[in-house]
Amino acid sequence: MGNEARLQDILTQLDGGLDAALDRLCDFLRIPSISTDPAHAGDVRRAAEWLRDELTGLGFDAQVHDTPGHPMVTARSPKGDARPLLFYGHYDVQPVDPLELWDRPPFAPAIEDGPKGRVIRARGASDDKGQLMTFVEAFRAWKAVHGSLPTDLILLFEGEEESGSPSLRPFLRDHAEDLRASLAVICDTGLYADGRPAITTQLRGLVGQEVVIHAADRDLHSGSFGGLAANPIMILAQALAALKDGTGRVTLPGFYDGVADLPEALARDWQALDFDAGGFLSRVGLSQPIGEAGRTPLEMVWNQPTAEINGIAGGYAGDGFKTVLPAMARAKVSFRLTGTQDPQAIRAAFQDHVRRFLPADCRVEFHDHGASPASVMDITDPAFDQARTALSEEWGRDAAFIGAGGSIPIAGDFKQILGMDSLLIGFASDDDRIHSPNEKYDVEAFAKGARSWARILTALRS
Amino acid sequence: MGNEARLQDILTQLDGGLDAALDRLCDFLRIPSISTDPAHAGDVRRAAEWLRDELTGLGFDAQVHDTPGHPMVTARSPKGDARPLLFYGHYDVQPVDPLELWDRPPFAPAIEDGPKGRVIRARGASDDKGQLMTFVEAFRAWKAVHGSLPTDLILLFEGEEESGSPSLRPFLRDHAEDLRASLAVICDTGLYADGRPAITTQLRGLVGQEVVIHAADRDLHSGSFGGLAANPIMILAQALAALKDGTGRVTLPGFYDGVADLPEALARDWQALDFDAGGFLSRVGLSQPIGEAGRTPLEMVWNQPTAEINGIAGGYAGDGFKTVLPAMARAKVSFRLTGTQDPQAIRAAFQDHVRRFLPADCRVEFHDHGASPASVMDITDPAFDQARTALSEEWGRDAAFIGAGGSIPIAGDFKQILGMDSLLIGFASDDDRIHSPNEKYDVEAFAKGARSWARILTALRS
Repeated sequence: MGNEARLQDILTQLDGGLDAALDRLCDFLRIPSISTDPAHAGDVRRAAEWLRDELTGLGFDAQVHDTPGHPMVTARSPKGDARPLLFYGHYDVQPVDPLELWDRPPFAPAIEDGPKGRVIRARGASDDKGQLMTFVEAFRAWKAVHGSLPTDLILLFEGEEESGSPSLRPFLRDHAEDLRASLAVICDTGLYADGRPAITTQLRGLVGQEVVIHAADRDLHSGSFGGLAANPIMILAQALAALKDGTGRVTLPGFYDGVADLPEALARDWQALDFDAGGFLSRVGLSQPIGEAGRTPLEMVWNQPTAEINGIAGGYAGDGFKTVLPAMARAKVSFRLTGTQDPQAIRAAFQDHVRRFLPADCRVEFHDHGASPASVMDITDPAFDQARTALSEEWGRDAAFIGAGGSIPIAGDFKQILGMDSLLIGFASDDDRIHSPNEKYDVEAFAKGARSWARILTALRS
Repeated sequence: MGNEARLQDILTQLDGGLDAALDRLCDFLRIPSISTDPAHAGDVRRAAEWLRDELTGLGFDAQVHDTPGHPMVTARSPKGDARPLLFYGHYDVQPVDPLELWDRPPFAPAIEDGPKGRVIRARGASDDKGQLMTFVEAFRAWKAVHGSLPTDLILLFEGEEESGSPSLRPFLRDHAEDLRASLAVICDTGLYADGRPAITTQLRGLVGQEVVIHAADRDLHSGSFGGLAANPIMILAQALAALKDGTGRVTLPGFYDGVADLPEALARDWQALDFDAGGFLSRVGLSQPIGEAGRTPLEMVWNQPTAEINGIAGGYAGDGFKTVLPAMARAKVSFRLTGTQDPQAIRAAFQDHVRRFLPADCRVEFHDHGASPASVMDITDPAFDQARTALSEEWGRDAAFIGAGGSIPIAGDFKQILGMDSLLIGFASDDDRIHSPNEKYDVEAFAKGARSWARILTALRS
């Protein structure tokens, strides 16, 4: 009997086991695995061990690996001749402050009736324990129906995602041989607006750069020196202002090397999303897209690179007025990257740009804050269309290929260290209140999430 | 016997009375008339009364006037048919913190031997009690020789100069009839570099303006919104950068209306000063004049207007990095004015300029911080050349007509409220440590200062 023939049995199995699956999730949610708080280090380890035991019980070869920080959990299903897939999630959670804003204790999960249906209420319900368990429940149901786990699965569950993943890259490098698959599957994203299932196929990269302009060796009186001595705020303002031309394009030489127009198929997909830029902006008090002329708003945030000033400081900006010519001025600048833009080349072009504005008697200091290229998945990999079809069937509406304006560092890490693209699928909703009090996950997202993975696994294993 | 014939007697009188004059100055310096410290309000009044008594003893009609703040001291000499002159100085002093950096108690004055000669060491020795007493000692010696005071003098001594002169303008308005003369004489300036006597004949004005750009109604994530939503720091940077063109000229329409090239005679005078711009800048770690091409460095700071950014703040500028698109950004900008530039017109032109950079969904907020025009004295008034000749004779070297890059508000107030130009002459040195611990005044400056006023009075009364 082929895998597809058994899919219906797996879905039935999942539906019948939903209450038991929710009980297991609640057990998992009771462990306060807050990774940023050293007082909870033991709880983080307990969550890792809970997962290991759960996976071992399903027939995985599961292990807890010590790191300089919190443990990594890995698990492997039996080897076969299928396409190896790496599933990634994280079992640590955000802190719960301010505790008084929670309607119930954050680590005493409960199923509640909400206006849109039942929800699982607890810290980590959505981010990421609930999502992670959609994997596990799909594997469990598969095994119940097939009698064995899908072969050639590698699982990697991290305990430091909410504290910056300091151990992740070294761990990927040290265990590259064991972890390398042909595709990663990441369950840390959400549904698109109004509940449409989505696969994030491209994420912008990021270069962060601090620039400090030094002029005189002390603050000067602007009466005595104004018009004669260099003003570092003016130098900085001129360098930053010249980063963009009148049409919104970034002016750095070579900046657009590697930036590609959106493939026609994706352009059609994005068009079909009917993104309401006006509504999106009006929720934050704005109304006008400011990106490059001729681009759609979704292109501006998902497929176009940009230069942004994230912070600036210099001289006296407090109450009242000081007629000072300051000794220095600083700014934090970031570039969101798309396509194959080279972060290091862009950093260098920015530094050259600033130096062109620098008088000979001033100096500039640069501090680097991260550099990661964009993640653009190869959507000609049939897995993407197979997963899209599976999602569309499960949710009863067309799944979308979408982009993301921010980065999900793990996708870049998998690409750079393990050479894999990522299939980014998740079932979180905008109203899940992740990182906030009263976090929840929709029971429907949990149930249909597990069913979605059963469908996707079946499609990828056909 | 004419006044000029008696000048030598006055100078001899001053030389013979120097020790007694120093004793009187030390009495005055013992009164801790710190105007910013309410605990010293009684001392400030005591200093006012000390002055009144001193002036009454010389035959002036002297009064202490209450104000909402510290008192004003006025005094008048008998009326005659001479040109009325208003002498201005201030009897309050700066605070003394940090006290532990003083080599002796700040209000226990002493005559000390210094590397360049004797000095009077105390708070206020130079700023401005010592300078003020050069007036008084000149009047005293005049009376001793002539038998009566010079006629048609009005004296105005303020007790709030070190705390922003809040009562001064209302006092000038309320007593305009009594205080109006044909020329003010102000003793709160210094010798030019290396001790050359100088008359400050022009001071730049000042317009202070704060600008706040508001974009979204909250800080945004630059991943989700970058390239789509307005960035107030970029708007601000572009507006500020465009204030100057590539040659250093301010671009505001009409900005240079009223700015005049330096009259040829002054240009020659300034040239003769051999201003060492390189040395001036190198003392603060710089080397390159940045003003408008084709201007000398002294023109840049004394005769050219300028636009300066005195402070800027927006977004996150602390340690590390935040990928934030801030809701707002602010800057403090000032314009130094020359000639007859109109402060209000320039404020309006700047606001219009900023608004041109403002997207329709952002808004701007302006806060005004003072507006005063430049003070440019009419040096065809013969008093200026008479005073210059008198100074040159006393100091044995050519006195200079100089400018000042900053403003001395009292000169503007006299012009605007009383319609008088000011003869700004003082004998302070750069190394007097005014406002700092161990303030001093050179005994030579005190002695030659009083002699200078005797010569100037004689010249103006001839």
